[in-house]
Amino acid sequence: MATLLLRNIRQLVQTETEAQTWPSPRRAEAMRVLPSVDDAWLLIEGERILDFGPMSTCPERADEVIDVAGGTVLPAWCDSHTHLVFAGSRETEFVDRIHGLSYEEIARRGGGILNSARRLQDASEDDLFEQAWRRLEEVKGYGTGAIEIKSGYGLTLEAELKMLRVAKRLAEQSSLSIKTTLLGAHALPQAFKNNREDFVKLVIEEMIPRVADEGLAEYIDVFCEKNFFSVAEADQIMAAGLRFGLKPKIHTNQFNSMGGIQAAVQRGAISVDHLEVVNQEEIDCLRSAETIATLLPSAPFFLNDHYPPAREMLDAGVAIALATDFNPGSTPSGRMPFVLSLACIKLRMTPEEAINAATINGAAAMELADELGSIRVGKIANLLITSPISSLAYIPYAFGSDLVKKVILRGEVQ
Amino acid sequence: MATLLLRNIRQLVQTETEAQTWPSPRRAEAMRVLPSVDDAWLLIEGERILDFGPMSTCPERADEVIDVAGGTVLPAWCDSHTHLVFAGSRETEFVDRIHGLSYEEIARRGGGILNSARRLQDASEDDLFEQAWRRLEEVKGYGTGAIEIKSGYGLTLEAELKMLRVAKRLAEQSSLSIKTTLLGAHALPQAFKNNREDFVKLVIEEMIPRVADEGLAEYIDVFCEKNFFSVAEADQIMAAGLRFGLKPKIHTNQFNSMGGIQAAVQRGAISVDHLEVVNQEEIDCLRSAETIATLLPSAPFFLNDHYPPAREMLDAGVAIALATDFNPGSTPSGRMPFVLSLACIKLRMTPEEAINAATINGAAAMELADELGSIRVGKIANLLITSPISSLAYIPYAFGSDLVKKVILRGEVQ
Repeated sequence: MATLLLRNIRQLVQTETEAQTWPSPRRAEAMRVLPSVDDAWLLIEGERILDFGPMSTCPERADEVIDVAGGTVLPAWCDSHTHLVFAGSRETEFVDRIHGLSYEEIARRGGGILNSARRLQDASEDDLFEQAWRRLEEVKGYGTGAIEIKSGYGLTLEAELKMLRVAKRLAEQSSLSIKTTLLGAHALPQAFKNNREDFVKLVIEEMIPRVADEGLAEYIDVFCEKNFFSVAEADQIMAAGLRFGLKPKIHTNQFNSMGGIQAAVQRGAISVDHLEVVNQEEIDCLRSAETIATLLPSAPFFLNDHYPPAREMLDAGVAIALATDFNPGSTPSGRMPFVLSLACIKLRMTPEEAINAATINGAAAMELADELGSIRVGKIANLLITSPISSLAYIPYAFGSDLVKKVILRGEVQ
Repeated sequence: MATLLLRNIRQLVQTETEAQTWPSPRRAEAMRVLPSVDDAWLLIEGERILDFGPMSTCPERADEVIDVAGGTVLPAWCDSHTHLVFAGSRETEFVDRIHGLSYEEIARRGGGILNSARRLQDASEDDLFEQAWRRLEEVKGYGTGAIEIKSGYGLTLEAELKMLRVAKRLAEQSSLSIKTTLLGAHALPQAFKNNREDFVKLVIEEMIPRVADEGLAEYIDVFCEKNFFSVAEADQIMAAGLRFGLKPKIHTNQFNSMGGIQAAVQRGAISVDHLEVVNQEEIDCLRSAETIATLLPSAPFFLNDHYPPAREMLDAGVAIALATDFNPGSTPSGRMPFVLSLACIKLRMTPEEAINAATINGAAAMELADELGSIRVGKIANLLITSPISSLAYIPYAFGSDLVKKVILRGEVQ
């Protein structure tokens, strides 16, 4: 197998050795440190990391050599919450918000998720694939190497299957590692306005079995929120997912605290996502749970500046992941470096905590931490190389700069 | 002279014809519109715009032809407030803030501007030039074609002269249009801690005459703010600048409303910059003045989320420009497209208002509106070309995307 050597790395970040392997997801003290090797090299064989160390021990030859010239090398970002497959942008609603309408008002007017759903239902599978492919290529340029993609703009069985088939095609053809999630219960379609039970039934009795049968998703999601789905409905949907082997990863506590976190933790959810509105009881529930709290600060940045109380959660020992929430309504951006900036500027996470949350904990939130999210011998070589920077803190600090200069996925320069 | 033709432009934005030429700076209704030509071409001869029109009238030949393939063409951004010449980054203070210190506390500890001043005093002119050149190349990639650069990290006569000489060298060698400003009174140096009068005297009696004599700056600036310089001191400095032909462009109302706006307007200032804290009386003062209100939303984004009341100012008819404030302390970013996003997301400016503020009004805030900031026959061809976008609102909406694909300055593709 061909070898690729990276040399003259100023700092090789998020390293693990056999003697120093951390639990994942990381929490508390383990999130505050970021093991690294200064002035380092890294050797890739095929698609995996073969070895790494300080330049004083650098191998002399390899099939291909990249002189990183003082750049920093990190694991590629693991973006564990996106809605990457969608049809068209929604900047007209953005302008409506400038003119004073709230996100919830726009939703009530048939905008929001229902707007995306109409457009998605009309789009062909090929068109959806092309659009999503371009987004995938874009986020790869920002250093993302693994990504989760949800359905949820279908709202009918056929359209949900169409979305997930597109996501599966992306997974087959892309160099990124992709996990897929059924979010059948993302919003209540107009047709079920006075008949919510039947829609929940459709999700449970038709969508979940069919998606599981076709192997189109690994996870089950639901938007547990006022005006969307109740805790009881979310719980039924999670239970149904689990019966078909789909583990829960749910949207909850974006605008209101309703009990979604506790219900998800009880169901052994992989992650609970958003958490802009969280009380102490919920933090206590998460600190003793395996469930990861996935924070999506680009959404409150775009919507309402109501950021999750990350500091309290981190200090309590909750395991935090960071993701983009890339979607056309509340977060038209898949730029992970900007999520890191928001995490430090608005959530008061330290650069070390933010990088842990965006790499190894993001990987854990997709059950990929054995293969991705850190630099360990034998793991898949998903790496990003920055331009020369003065320190790791420079990455979130320089919030507008394009610092990712090269991306390597499965051992191949992209 | 060589000609360059851009064809298949989806939308040619911020156009002016003889019949439809707007006053600059624009205010009120003139800021709410953005004249444009759909499906257009544009012809450049030498460094100037020769003509433009709809594709049905497209010239058949030119020395060089660029098929824009559905991209949108705008005037390059005019960034009228930066501190681009500085020595080194300040991410350690950024981390201090994450750990709970305020910007003002960091300043009191000898961090902040005084930290940059120490480092600048130690840096060689060549080193400063190299660092600033890289930043200039970076912001050009984001679509900036004209930029103002301030001194103010020198705080001694020699160091201020060094900064401005670097800025002048940049102006000579760069394809960007550059204006320079003496900001001698940016902070009170430690050496003058108990002797502020002598420092103001140094600015007035030594810095201003010397800078004017060497032709190193066009404008005079002062940081009019609590713990920095009083309105009376600012007024003395503005008056002294004017005696030597330096027009005022001042920092005021970043944290407190002290009367700086009124004093600057009375002195006929070109612009008053920051304005995060503004009362009705000050808005009234600006609505009837020629002075431009330059808003710098990246600074409150990075510091405290206290954004200027742009909507009230716009609705009152104040002329607004947008700029980055690029500096190592409060705004480590020179990305104008992100400033547009903040203007729309946080300041509730419409995309049209934001684009007017970032082009023609930015040009006016550097007294360059006759040459730059709009697409008019005879103006300098400073243009940016985006990837294909669905509408102008898409630019601020897609807040994390790199949409600027090509930049043309003085008729040359960069």
